[in-house]
Amino acid sequence: MKFVLAPDSFKESMSAEKAALAMEAGIRKVFPDAICEIVPMADGGEGTVESLVSLTKGKMIEAEVTGPLGDKVLAHYGLLGDGLVAVMEMASASGLPLVKPEDRNPLLTTTYGTGEMIKHALDLGVSRILLGIGGSATNDGGSGMLQALGVSFKDKEGVDLPRGGGALGRLHTFDVSELDPRLATVKIDVACDVSNPLVGENGVSVIFGPQKGATPEMVEQLDQNLAHYAKVIETLLAKNISDIEGAGAAGGLGAGLLAFLNAELKKGVDLVIDYISLEDRIIGADYVFTGEGSIDGQTLFGKTPYGVAKLAQKHGIPVVAFAGRIGEGAEKLYEHGFTSIVGILRGVCSLEDALKQGEENLTFAAESVARMIERRG
Amino acid sequence: MKFVLAPDSFKESMSAEKAALAMEAGIRKVFPDAICEIVPMADGGEGTVESLVSLTKGKMIEAEVTGPLGDKVLAHYGLLGDGLVAVMEMASASGLPLVKPEDRNPLLTTTYGTGEMIKHALDLGVSRILLGIGGSATNDGGSGMLQALGVSFKDKEGVDLPRGGGALGRLHTFDVSELDPRLATVKIDVACDVSNPLVGENGVSVIFGPQKGATPEMVEQLDQNLAHYAKVIETLLAKNISDIEGAGAAGGLGAGLLAFLNAELKKGVDLVIDYISLEDRIIGADYVFTGEGSIDGQTLFGKTPYGVAKLAQKHGIPVVAFAGRIGEGAEKLYEHGFTSIVGILRGVCSLEDALKQGEENLTFAAESVARMIERRG
Repeated sequence: MKFVLAPDSFKESMSAEKAALAMEAGIRKVFPDAICEIVPMADGGEGTVESLVSLTKGKMIEAEVTGPLGDKVLAHYGLLGDGLVAVMEMASASGLPLVKPEDRNPLLTTTYGTGEMIKHALDLGVSRILLGIGGSATNDGGSGMLQALGVSFKDKEGVDLPRGGGALGRLHTFDVSELDPRLATVKIDVACDVSNPLVGENGVSVIFGPQKGATPEMVEQLDQNLAHYAKVIETLLAKNISDIEGAGAAGGLGAGLLAFLNAELKKGVDLVIDYISLEDRIIGADYVFTGEGSIDGQTLFGKTPYGVAKLAQKHGIPVVAFAGRIGEGAEKLYEHGFTSIVGILRGVCSLEDALKQGEENLTFAAESVARMIERRG
Repeated sequence: MKFVLAPDSFKESMSAEKAALAMEAGIRKVFPDAICEIVPMADGGEGTVESLVSLTKGKMIEAEVTGPLGDKVLAHYGLLGDGLVAVMEMASASGLPLVKPEDRNPLLTTTYGTGEMIKHALDLGVSRILLGIGGSATNDGGSGMLQALGVSFKDKEGVDLPRGGGALGRLHTFDVSELDPRLATVKIDVACDVSNPLVGENGVSVIFGPQKGATPEMVEQLDQNLAHYAKVIETLLAKNISDIEGAGAAGGLGAGLLAFLNAELKKGVDLVIDYISLEDRIIGADYVFTGEGSIDGQTLFGKTPYGVAKLAQKHGIPVVAFAGRIGEGAEKLYEHGFTSIVGILRGVCSLEDALKQGEENLTFAAESVARMIERRG
């Protein structure tokens, strides 16, 4: 018997790797000699770096970079086992949690640190970067990141703009001649699960600005600034980025990446599946186990279990999904490749206890399923 | 596909019948044409009457009888569909909840009402009685029941003893000539899951007396009285009841039944299995589903899921057990015929919500298992 164990993390309870190992422990009670392939998964969000580093026996890299408000922060990203691929989250350099609530001001916050983190990885010689963009403190259209990588944004007088989305209204032109030349050949895969465009009523300023500290007036200014930014880019680079789905992700960082770099936006889980060659790993498996802390109808919008299930379905392999919480709409998953959805709780308890007992609960549930499988032969 | 759905009740959440129907609803989502045999189960304790009445399309009977302290109570028992079998619980006539905590006194409480309930069933023409004995308020060795059925217990002066275990110390002789003659041919199957003997340090007075209101002095007196009672019985009937396992059940009611009536003590679940011909029902089934509110290591001590699993194992049929709570030691069940043990909770919630959502949770879990089954063909 061959099992592929490809869960996401169970948030606040266990990492994806620990979840996979907990599943293995349950299976081993029934099939001591089964092949269990441990594939810690992620969907491009939290835990993506850890899962890919763990799976490829890579390592974590520290980089001192500029935080959202100009102070220094220690960002972390992963260098995968082959040394050629970096996996990073913009939030590690430019995330909302790095700014105290009372200091949040998306007119000023910058993605400059994200650019420095990319540069740091280039210095290590990577040829491909997976960049998760979510949880940003910024609304600068990725201009800060581009500044760190060598682009200069100038006003009418030819003076460099200060950092932050608030200055973009004065953008007159930009100069890419100093853009780091390595970026011409380095592919940046952007893991992006929001579909918001850069500007307008569903744009990043309107939808995400307030949670980053923008007042209604700021929202209006930021939206106008990004529209202007897009217009200047369209004029100079002949690229229309204002209507692209997902260009509004991470305060418009998606737009900056698409306009200036060799970047592509994709669903996070599909990128992870690609980076770890999950398809090769599941071929020949009798069962695929996946899971996540919570599974519900939203799982179909790019969550790990859905990505795993689609792939398993393509190969005709049954997929069992485990979860601590099975919420509204979970039954829809049965129309999308899931064989069975299994709750792991073993009794009424506090959330704290449920999180604490995650591994033993998952082991028990995996054993239960393995016994069903064994019984059928 | 044929499924036999034989759960116990999920206490405070759903009756055994509702649980079986909830399982069926889950199975039908996967196998719309499956044969689902609904077999509400019980283990001789709470819910036994309801399950057997529901399964056999019998009816509930009301009988006004003497309560533990002499006041009138309305007892209920079941007359099964064929009209020839009564199913009753002694607690309905002589149970501890019928006596207010401040009035509890096992010197005085009597099983007289249980005898009246038996007589009531005899008047309906039954030929067999299943009597669940548990939860008693009494410590009278079943003497009250026997008094109601025609036995007279007398002191040295030939005067009838008053009711209650406190008077048995003065027992000199008894007279069975007025014992209801129908009892010679009516079989009483006693569902008994405790193994305590009548007297001694594991006897009924020592172990259960205190919870029925006995002080240490009362416990001593009650124990001596029952020893004396057993001795008189041994002298007059040549039956030794003091050492029999289970004779101490329900304040010694077990002993009284064994000594004077055509009675046999058995595990409750085995009796239920017998009464409903569960073995005939499961033959030819592809799967047996069982379950109970809580499953743990104690389940092996005569709980419904264990009884069902033993029988299914005998016929080589896989058994899946569902539970709201899977407690300590549940994994031991895998050595005793259980194929898989499945928790039905779908998330952290209050006990109240868990009880309220029992049916939908069970339906979801049964569907998950059915999908595993379907997938394997």
